[in-house]
Amino acid sequence: MTSYRYAINVTPKPGILDPQGRAVEGSLGHLGIEGVSAVRVGRRVELTVDASDQVAARAVVEHLAAELLSNPLIEAFEVEQLGEASSTVSAVGTAAEA
Amino acid sequence: MTSYRYAINVTPKPGILDPQGRAVEGSLGHLGIEGVSAVRVGRRVELTVDASDQVAARAVVEHLAAELLSNPLIEAFEVEQLGEASSTVSAVGTAAEA
Repeated sequence: MTSYRYAINVTPKPGILDPQGRAVEGSLGHLGIEGVSAVRVGRRVELTVDASDQVAARAVVEHLAAELLSNPLIEAFEVEQLGEASSTVSAVGTAAEA
Repeated sequence: MTSYRYAINVTPKPGILDPQGRAVEGSLGHLGIEGVSAVRVGRRVELTVDASDQVAARAVVEHLAAELLSNPLIEAFEVEQLGEASSTVSAVGTAAEA
């Protein structure tokens, strides 16, 4: 088993109302910040998956993102693979055990 | 002025309690998902900045992230520049106007 680290970025779909984004835009004036627009607020979930290979790990992440972490009616998600420091260590461990 | 699109990823600092992450881990069993651990739930904010150049745009984003979008006691943030489709268009427009 190798450990992979992923991030799942969940964002409101285009055209879907985003009250948090509007709230951020409304606060910009108080901070004296100009030139910022089109603010969209979503979630970012980072997690570790132990799987036999990268294809299996990614399948688990896609399943989790679609079933638990996003609402497909109003949100889109994208999966991003993060640094594989722990997977390298695990891969070495596996090779040594084999 | 050129338009730049950025994402700000805000995540709980290591060691900080993350109840949303624990909730996700607690739900994995119901979905029959195994091998997922170290779940951390944060926010992802995407926004457009109009600025004279990329350095100025990034300064605005860093300021906004530190002052409004994250709590420095318990959260870390990282800034990510996204595709520059709109900046290319704006740059062309600016060149044509010049």
